[in-house]
Amino acid sequence: MASTHLKIDRDQSARRIEQDVETLGGPEYTRSAETICRYAYTPEYRRTLDYFKAAFEDLAYDVSEDPVGNFVARNRPDEEPVFGIGSHCDSNRNGGKYDGTLGVVTALEICRLNAEHGLDLPLQVISFLEEESSGFGVALLGSRIAAQRITEEELEVANAIDDGRPFFEHAREAGYAPERWRESVVILRNLTGWIELHIEQARVLQDTGNRIGVVTAIAGITWLDITFEGRADHAGATPMDFRIDASVPAAEAVVELERLVLESGNGAVGTAGALSVDPGLHNVVPGEARVGMDIRAPRDDLVDQVVSGVTDFVQSVAKGRGVSVDISSRFRMPATPMDAGIIAALEGAAARTGEPFMSMPSGAAHDTMCVADHVATAMVFVPCTDGISHAPEESAEPADAAVAAEVILNAIREL
Amino acid sequence: MASTHLKIDRDQSARRIEQDVETLGGPEYTRSAETICRYAYTPEYRRTLDYFKAAFEDLAYDVSEDPVGNFVARNRPDEEPVFGIGSHCDSNRNGGKYDGTLGVVTALEICRLNAEHGLDLPLQVISFLEEESSGFGVALLGSRIAAQRITEEELEVANAIDDGRPFFEHAREAGYAPERWRESVVILRNLTGWIELHIEQARVLQDTGNRIGVVTAIAGITWLDITFEGRADHAGATPMDFRIDASVPAAEAVVELERLVLESGNGAVGTAGALSVDPGLHNVVPGEARVGMDIRAPRDDLVDQVVSGVTDFVQSVAKGRGVSVDISSRFRMPATPMDAGIIAALEGAAARTGEPFMSMPSGAAHDTMCVADHVATAMVFVPCTDGISHAPEESAEPADAAVAAEVILNAIREL
Repeated sequence: MASTHLKIDRDQSARRIEQDVETLGGPEYTRSAETICRYAYTPEYRRTLDYFKAAFEDLAYDVSEDPVGNFVARNRPDEEPVFGIGSHCDSNRNGGKYDGTLGVVTALEICRLNAEHGLDLPLQVISFLEEESSGFGVALLGSRIAAQRITEEELEVANAIDDGRPFFEHAREAGYAPERWRESVVILRNLTGWIELHIEQARVLQDTGNRIGVVTAIAGITWLDITFEGRADHAGATPMDFRIDASVPAAEAVVELERLVLESGNGAVGTAGALSVDPGLHNVVPGEARVGMDIRAPRDDLVDQVVSGVTDFVQSVAKGRGVSVDISSRFRMPATPMDAGIIAALEGAAARTGEPFMSMPSGAAHDTMCVADHVATAMVFVPCTDGISHAPEESAEPADAAVAAEVILNAIREL
Repeated sequence: MASTHLKIDRDQSARRIEQDVETLGGPEYTRSAETICRYAYTPEYRRTLDYFKAAFEDLAYDVSEDPVGNFVARNRPDEEPVFGIGSHCDSNRNGGKYDGTLGVVTALEICRLNAEHGLDLPLQVISFLEEESSGFGVALLGSRIAAQRITEEELEVANAIDDGRPFFEHAREAGYAPERWRESVVILRNLTGWIELHIEQARVLQDTGNRIGVVTAIAGITWLDITFEGRADHAGATPMDFRIDASVPAAEAVVELERLVLESGNGAVGTAGALSVDPGLHNVVPGEARVGMDIRAPRDDLVDQVVSGVTDFVQSVAKGRGVSVDISSRFRMPATPMDAGIIAALEGAAARTGEPFMSMPSGAAHDTMCVADHVATAMVFVPCTDGISHAPEESAEPADAAVAAEVILNAIREL
């Protein structure tokens, strides 16, 4: 579509992005003075949507919200095809200013640039409701609803973390029509593609000196909960060959997980993030040990391979030691490959900025996983300081987001 | 001294031992209806001492208590040499009827037999104050005081777990003169030897079908607290080669501890009883991991060898992984070999009972460790069901204690 690379005024874009981010980091937009804390249907969240509403209306966009509260701004009538950009603007319960919000703010900046440069690209911005699960404990809630990746039953049992009352009740009180949640799918219709900008949430871009990450796939994920049951015994009085110690096979499983993901390579990662023993006293042989594992990879076959490697290992070790073991899997999500055409357009545009960039998988889950059920998608990452997210110390450079805006705008021109 | 083995009426001894144990398991002698719960200076503990006082006075023993409340009963004047037997009669906070108390009850039975058989062996029974640390958080309190294995400063900072008030205050209110604690050493003077009977607190005797264990040494013990500091990172977004995961080296240390004690053999045991990671979430690479280890062996050189093996391993692993590590050692107690002469006498007497017995180290600490500073000592174990102690389910056979009484009585005759 486009013949030459459009170079934007990055300083101006950085200033505007910074101003939006800082404004939304102010006291009106968070429930806490120490941290960013805004989630679905709270007054702070409402004011955040109203801020975007006003900004998009200034650009003459049609602004609407779907039956549950996903925010939509379009510069074309409903039935016309548009390219989608956006992210989410809720925070986790102890959040920073950039996670999610930077993506919506940068989408707004892209819309400003689209107007200022007279491009008139057909665009639709979405800010998805409740990505962080902070209000109702359901991650990717808004995008799952839009993608119909959730059931009526699941919504019925979603209760507010703060007061225990149902999602449906809260949504109705906030002025929505949540019983019509299935209609939310319309916000994904007529999209010709989708790009989400997000902070990386890790330190790869920072540590490799890259300003832009073009996401090739969002990793598939499985959580394994492994419980070893042995026998609690006196740590001094029980000889080694009389023990059924639950802690040693648990430790072996932690070591094996690392070995398996390193053997797998290809972006697979495995974490034994939760680890505990019972009763947990120096002088008692642990009768029970629990390991909680997070396994991810950009391809499902890699996840499956690690999961089955861990499972085989754990069962064999448990058998050899006379320990019983229970393995359960939860929070299983398939890998989401990004669209090759959009990736190529983003990589081309990134190369033409002259700024250092890299292609990389996303280990974190994002709303884009749900969007990808319906339309070709991709994502762009910008660095965040020391990889910190979900904390008040979270920090990112508006100047990097300005580069990302230039990259995304140019990619959309080309697509 | 003795020419032939003295066979006692074991059924009668078992009945008397059972009656004493069951009486002291009654509501007058415990603060809890569900469990045995009696500790220093409580009315329940006082009534327990009074029970023994009356029993020993029936046998015409001189009964006294030292300046802190160690209980002493002798059948000879103070200055004459006597052979010491006994244990402790306090419980842990969720205790059973046998731990400690069975040793004092069996000592009482030995005194009865001494009289009934007209042996007139010179005997002194001690029931040490507060072995279990349930009152003031200091294990082996009474025997440490008697052995002068404690300092004025340590006693000054010992406060009651229940009300936080000082040991000295409680002891004075109970009618003692704790400021004169150094005089307690007299209860170990004039002893010609010492034998303590105790439940095994593990399942070796039960599982090997032995009724008597002759203790060869009380294990030396060291606790290691190892803290690995890595860096908490997003479990999905952080590639393997960008991590400083604290959990994997901690797990490696747990596995290595087992390898080292098995390599050491000779009764060495090692337990990673405490194990935790921070923040402890599936999806966060642990930034900190803590392992608490208990290492014991019947010889100090074996303990030292395992401790130094663990230390070298952990430092090398930490260095290789860029994790920082802190290793601290606490609760260090040297191994206490039992006296060869008393062991031989006990083994000979045990063999002559015709009952199955074995020699074994004690992995658990006992008051006898402190007594051993001053006099030749040994211990006799009897089985406890499934190795359970420090719990209301704790159970042992009075008939085994009767065999032990026969063994100890015969050993003392011979010495």
